[in-house]
Amino acid sequence: MTKSIKRSYIREILDATNKETISFAGGLPDENLFPMEKLKNASLKVLDDSSSMQYSKSQGIEDLREKIAKLYTKYFDFPTTKDEILITTGSQQAFDIISKTFLEKEVIVQTPTYIGALSAFKVLDLKVKDFKYIGSLNYQLKKDNGLYVMSDFANPNAKSLEKEERKEIAHILNKKGSFLIEDAAYSLLDFDGKIKKPISAYYQKSFHLGSFSKIVAPGLRVGWIRCDKKFIEKILVSKEALDLHTPTLNQMILNQFLEDNDLFEHLKKIRMDYKEKMEFMASCFKKYIPSFQFEKPNGGMFIYGKFQEDSFLLAKEVLKKNIAFVPAQVFFADSKKSKEARFNFTNSSKKQIEKGIKEISNMIITKNESIWFKMFKERLS
Amino acid sequence: MTKSIKRSYIREILDATNKETISFAGGLPDENLFPMEKLKNASLKVLDDSSSMQYSKSQGIEDLREKIAKLYTKYFDFPTTKDEILITTGSQQAFDIISKTFLEKEVIVQTPTYIGALSAFKVLDLKVKDFKYIGSLNYQLKKDNGLYVMSDFANPNAKSLEKEERKEIAHILNKKGSFLIEDAAYSLLDFDGKIKKPISAYYQKSFHLGSFSKIVAPGLRVGWIRCDKKFIEKILVSKEALDLHTPTLNQMILNQFLEDNDLFEHLKKIRMDYKEKMEFMASCFKKYIPSFQFEKPNGGMFIYGKFQEDSFLLAKEVLKKNIAFVPAQVFFADSKKSKEARFNFTNSSKKQIEKGIKEISNMIITKNESIWFKMFKERLS
Repeated sequence: MTKSIKRSYIREILDATNKETISFAGGLPDENLFPMEKLKNASLKVLDDSSSMQYSKSQGIEDLREKIAKLYTKYFDFPTTKDEILITTGSQQAFDIISKTFLEKEVIVQTPTYIGALSAFKVLDLKVKDFKYIGSLNYQLKKDNGLYVMSDFANPNAKSLEKEERKEIAHILNKKGSFLIEDAAYSLLDFDGKIKKPISAYYQKSFHLGSFSKIVAPGLRVGWIRCDKKFIEKILVSKEALDLHTPTLNQMILNQFLEDNDLFEHLKKIRMDYKEKMEFMASCFKKYIPSFQFEKPNGGMFIYGKFQEDSFLLAKEVLKKNIAFVPAQVFFADSKKSKEARFNFTNSSKKQIEKGIKEISNMIITKNESIWFKMFKERLS
Repeated sequence: MTKSIKRSYIREILDATNKETISFAGGLPDENLFPMEKLKNASLKVLDDSSSMQYSKSQGIEDLREKIAKLYTKYFDFPTTKDEILITTGSQQAFDIISKTFLEKEVIVQTPTYIGALSAFKVLDLKVKDFKYIGSLNYQLKKDNGLYVMSDFANPNAKSLEKEERKEIAHILNKKGSFLIEDAAYSLLDFDGKIKKPISAYYQKSFHLGSFSKIVAPGLRVGWIRCDKKFIEKILVSKEALDLHTPTLNQMILNQFLEDNDLFEHLKKIRMDYKEKMEFMASCFKKYIPSFQFEKPNGGMFIYGKFQEDSFLLAKEVLKKNIAFVPAQVFFADSKKSKEARFNFTNSSKKQIEKGIKEISNMIITKNESIWFKMFKERLS
């Protein structure tokens, strides 16, 4: 079925990197911020109980679902019960099991959009089309297709939808009846700690995807789907067929961690650190590559901007110097050429950030000089 | 896509059970045999390194792949390198990613066969057909379809293929060129510790699936695929789209556990315990339900046999008394009626085994008496 699909370019970059690489390419959170001692304590408690190593129910552990439901009710202005939560193996898994269960042919996505979602849809032979303006959804959405959006600090361009835009999308959805997949991977990473009400809270045929990867640790691979109870029963068929259930141990560790610690205290640390790194990277761009156009994000993990050069060629060149970033081409459903690029600022030290951007700057200058030299020679001849 | 598929009956039973249920239904290993102290020690070591909580490569952690490769070379008479191993989130995941990548329409399975594989194939809209005799594979196999077999202590009927049968299947495969999916979930659970050479060792277009669920602990959800290097690159597309990678923490815990302990010492304990439980369950059947026909297995986790009654109705009746087992109907690709049933002996105490089988016996006697009484009344009238 998927014979013709190429491996994700980002994963290829990740596979090509080594310990020496300065990587702005991945979406890796800062390892230094993982609450290792707290996770160790949680693990120790959990490992006293052999049921942490046993099979468990497909929907996920009740206590953890309860805690996630409370997050919605308390912080997202979105009343939720544990029966409306299904635990997934990373929020990535949600794309597969929702699509398999409900989507027949087509999904409409933002442009640019998260490459992992694109892959998941394409592996299932779904047609992926993008939309540029909310108004065009009036023509693109149908009862049997899906809409995929990231409402907060979207990967890759770090943009968020305003309240009015959310309501407008919900309004169109309510008219058309499509399935909404709303990805909230970065929703708790606003630098100022604000949390916005999701589109899903205004629309019943919706799946709101959450993840512990960016707020606790990705190595646990635990995410969730928040949706109407009646949809959960259907998705469970696909979930069970995939991995029976998400690892019991990982769910129990997270449950214990949340039991013993204040998640929002931890989030505060992450947000402060990420804001500082973002500001630093922004200042490096202004200093070394002033031609790189971008807006500073209010949250998330990426700076997204536009070079004056073809970003795909530039990325290829700098990878030879062991510096990695992602050219925007891969984020478009139709892979169109682009000068835009995504830079992750959470997984490098300030020293690495400065060194990396300086090197890219040198590369651009050298290239431009050689182009200038070539043009000069051509004129002479 | 999967709208019409019902949830797995076994998972439904598992969801219906509570702490009071005597369950012979699941395929749960004995929790008391999980090496909890050793896993705790491994976890502690691993949690000193924050990379255990970070994203990692899609194919899996190199050290763990290396160790699994050595298992093949040393014990399965099947020379293997780490490049031929792909780590999966439970061996269940392997069905999905192999099928998505290579199978277009159809898969041929043993009868009866593992219900989890059936679900995975059906969720992907594959046609599932069974074969009863090896010879019929000559007609059923084609270049573009797949063959799914469990060569050792198959779930549900605990049967193994003899060496000659393996060679015969490999011979047909070599003529036809189908994809072979060989499931080795129970291959290391021979009561006498024997390990047989898999069919995959005689056939290149093969995927040999392994799992730590039955030999260490299922709550970690770590399995693997052993196949030709050139297939791995293709499967990675589907694997990445599904969950990016198998949880880093879980892979590292297993790697550390295998580093510090002798897996085969641990397996010895499991095998001795399971043999004893099996013998005990067999003696209970002989004592309380002598009409139940079965052969004692040489390994694995199940006794499979035949009642004189419809096993589906019987299972439904005894579930009301809080006793669970699985009627064979669910193990057939076409769900045909059956008197056969599967009993798991690894997840109950001897006391529970005796009590459970006695209750089933009482149920049968009461039912037969009421049928006899009904017949008697009918004759009188």
